[in-house]
Amino acid sequence: MDSTLTSRVVQHVLAGAKEGLFLTSELLPSERDLAERLAVSRNTVTAAYAELERRGAIRRIHGKGAYLCAVPADEESFSWSGKISRFANALDEPVLELLARSCAGEIRYPFSAGTPSLEIFSKEMYRASVTHVLDGAIPSALAVAPTEGQGRLRSAIAAWLGFSPQHVMITAGAQEGIDLMARCLIEPGDAVVVDAPTYPGALQSFLSAGARLLAWGTEWSLGQLEDLLLRYRPKMIFTTPTFQNPTGRVMSLKTRNGLLELARRYRTPVLEDDVYRETYFGENAMPESLYRLDKHSQVVNVSTFSKILAPGLRIGWLTAPLYMVKQLSLIKMRSNLFTGGLNQLVLADLIERGAFDRHLQQLRSHHRGLCDAALAALEPSLRNGLLRCRVPSGGLYLWCKIVASVDIDEFFGALEASGISVAPGMAFEPRRNKRDSSHFRLCFTAVTQRQLAEGLRKLNRTLERCCSQALPDVQKVRCP
Amino acid sequence: MDSTLTSRVVQHVLAGAKEGLFLTSELLPSERDLAERLAVSRNTVTAAYAELERRGAIRRIHGKGAYLCAVPADEESFSWSGKISRFANALDEPVLELLARSCAGEIRYPFSAGTPSLEIFSKEMYRASVTHVLDGAIPSALAVAPTEGQGRLRSAIAAWLGFSPQHVMITAGAQEGIDLMARCLIEPGDAVVVDAPTYPGALQSFLSAGARLLAWGTEWSLGQLEDLLLRYRPKMIFTTPTFQNPTGRVMSLKTRNGLLELARRYRTPVLEDDVYRETYFGENAMPESLYRLDKHSQVVNVSTFSKILAPGLRIGWLTAPLYMVKQLSLIKMRSNLFTGGLNQLVLADLIERGAFDRHLQQLRSHHRGLCDAALAALEPSLRNGLLRCRVPSGGLYLWCKIVASVDIDEFFGALEASGISVAPGMAFEPRRNKRDSSHFRLCFTAVTQRQLAEGLRKLNRTLERCCSQALPDVQKVRCP
Repeated sequence: MDSTLTSRVVQHVLAGAKEGLFLTSELLPSERDLAERLAVSRNTVTAAYAELERRGAIRRIHGKGAYLCAVPADEESFSWSGKISRFANALDEPVLELLARSCAGEIRYPFSAGTPSLEIFSKEMYRASVTHVLDGAIPSALAVAPTEGQGRLRSAIAAWLGFSPQHVMITAGAQEGIDLMARCLIEPGDAVVVDAPTYPGALQSFLSAGARLLAWGTEWSLGQLEDLLLRYRPKMIFTTPTFQNPTGRVMSLKTRNGLLELARRYRTPVLEDDVYRETYFGENAMPESLYRLDKHSQVVNVSTFSKILAPGLRIGWLTAPLYMVKQLSLIKMRSNLFTGGLNQLVLADLIERGAFDRHLQQLRSHHRGLCDAALAALEPSLRNGLLRCRVPSGGLYLWCKIVASVDIDEFFGALEASGISVAPGMAFEPRRNKRDSSHFRLCFTAVTQRQLAEGLRKLNRTLERCCSQALPDVQKVRCP
Repeated sequence: MDSTLTSRVVQHVLAGAKEGLFLTSELLPSERDLAERLAVSRNTVTAAYAELERRGAIRRIHGKGAYLCAVPADEESFSWSGKISRFANALDEPVLELLARSCAGEIRYPFSAGTPSLEIFSKEMYRASVTHVLDGAIPSALAVAPTEGQGRLRSAIAAWLGFSPQHVMITAGAQEGIDLMARCLIEPGDAVVVDAPTYPGALQSFLSAGARLLAWGTEWSLGQLEDLLLRYRPKMIFTTPTFQNPTGRVMSLKTRNGLLELARRYRTPVLEDDVYRETYFGENAMPESLYRLDKHSQVVNVSTFSKILAPGLRIGWLTAPLYMVKQLSLIKMRSNLFTGGLNQLVLADLIERGAFDRHLQQLRSHHRGLCDAALAALEPSLRNGLLRCRVPSGGLYLWCKIVASVDIDEFFGALEASGISVAPGMAFEPRRNKRDSSHFRLCFTAVTQRQLAEGLRKLNRTLERCCSQALPDVQKVRCP
């Protein structure tokens, strides 16, 4: 064999690689093809390929052929961004960041995140239960535990709500329940009916599972729902019928039954976000949950202690048909195996001792007081017709509509500069083409009465300032 | 208009719906088409459609046409199984259940789940830190907290390991870190290189993200790895180079550097499962982690307190380039918003006070004692040549090969009947067509010395019995 010929073939391949004629991770021409193309013997190509492999430039894989190996990259640092899945990338990062920023240090008036009052949370009550648990059940708080949750907490919740414990599954907050449902049911391209506006965390979970969102207005028209069911055959209906987030609305009993009837006829599962059910201020006059009204095991209900005790506990639960408890557990197992035991046992202890119930009573009347204080503090803006909001009978929020003409970005910027965070309406909007620039959600429960009054006074002034700037020719609104 | 004709059209549509000629959620023929087909006037069809809509049998949607509505289903209970996503369904449920069963009550000798010794865990140490935290930082344990984790714990871990805190992100165990990476990078159809055998929880996360698994034998041949990189262009390499699960092997420094070089050349991210790094028995003579050796920010490293303190705490961490800390946080936000504060602050306190370090020292020597005891107890089976296993220098497991011919299902059944759980080899196998029926993983750290000796004596006897049944003609093995 002519070694000059061989090294010419070697050079041909190396030059081809340099010029992009041959690509890394792609098959090189077969020995026979290359021999023909270069008019050399096949043995020459075989020898050249062997030499190239010896140099580490190619790899021959039995039964496949020869591949061109990669050469070291020039850049110093690896580029991760090109590796991110398109479902992870589909997410509306600014919205998430906006919501996340509300727990940053520089916020003096945190009205954006949905947190119950922690003033009411009795350290002594909590500490007593922690001690109780550490004295007794410490092994079950530290060992590997069932994915469905600690039996003691499942039983305590079931007894409180009047369900059977096997239908109750413990989650790391309601967000996890929603995300598990998304991962369990949604395939890329599936449609999901959602309230419009609705909880952004749910939108993020659905989008990251590849869902198309179908907006169902929170007037909750059954006609519109049936249109959506007929036209798009959605995989799931997601709704928050009680103290809807962010609007605070409550779905009537008649609409609930109508929704369930449609869900049954169109064989569509329902995911009920029920995290605000226990946050009523006065008497519990709310219609029954979809989960309770449902006669055909078609509803999964998610709830949490985050809105009625403390979000930092990260304990929620879902109530579901047995089949779904099992499916969702299998997915939770992949996600994080199980939820930590200590806070589960502490919560069970609090419920069993009646301490949780007493807390809830106090929380309701405290929240009612905060709601009244918020409405009183906003009175100037409401009276001036700059702002409009309905008076809620539960939940943690005022859903405020800016009636006056205002540059919304400027307004939010000015609020932030004053140390005030509110949740912008656009965060709750499932329709990509629709930018809600007239609403914001104000959580009145995460602060003290004093902070509330102070912060909202500043908010009134900021709004007036922005309005008078936006409408320089119109009669200036009077400063209170 | 002839009302008889109209009602005939109405009957025609209703009969067609009954016979399956028209389908629910599909468009009915246009008024013009149906009029032609039935040789009636278009007005008659219009009237018939109006009558059908009045009866709730069809819905006309502006600009689309008329849809046949669904009629109430006969079955009493909704069928969820048809609604499950195929990615959720792709999972090997029996394997998960098998692993989960090990925390069930009837297991007297739990050798399957990978748990460190909880005997060494000092209740007093833990309680002191809980009290410490509840006295001081209770609000940050209860309020909404950053998704990346409590700053105090990130700093404590960073100081312990010599990283910078911004690169450390807190997770609900290492499983969550792996699952976040799967959700962040993998799209359906993407290939992922995995050790074979490997940790089943990782396989479940990758499969549920839609990955194809490429098996890389735990001899860790770089040639085989480059073949896989060339042929399949995988999205990620997942490996456990230190005290590999389940084999206990340690990847050499040379192979680590070779792997990183290949990952760099083929621009492939590396996910390093490093949860056993601190579980060495004697001196720390392990090669550096891939994360530390990597010069191009291509590695994400996941770890956890589950293998060195207690799994029930559900606190792990990952170390990653800043870009990935941010991406993974955005995904964790969807998954469960953030991890509970109390155990994070307790852990930070334990590390800061030096208590965690003292615990780790004790744990290592205790684990070494348990490992010696396990090998001594298995001696009869090892000596008889029924079983083979390598002596590990860290980790929580013996990876046992049944050398004798044995019906593996019968063997596992007999073990379960004796109250013994081990993790079957097939649970760790990424190759669908390959059923490993000769290995099992034995965790020697979840039990007391006495349980260990007792349980393994029973295991020896069970194995001998199964062997003598499987080989009736061969010379019986002697009972010890």
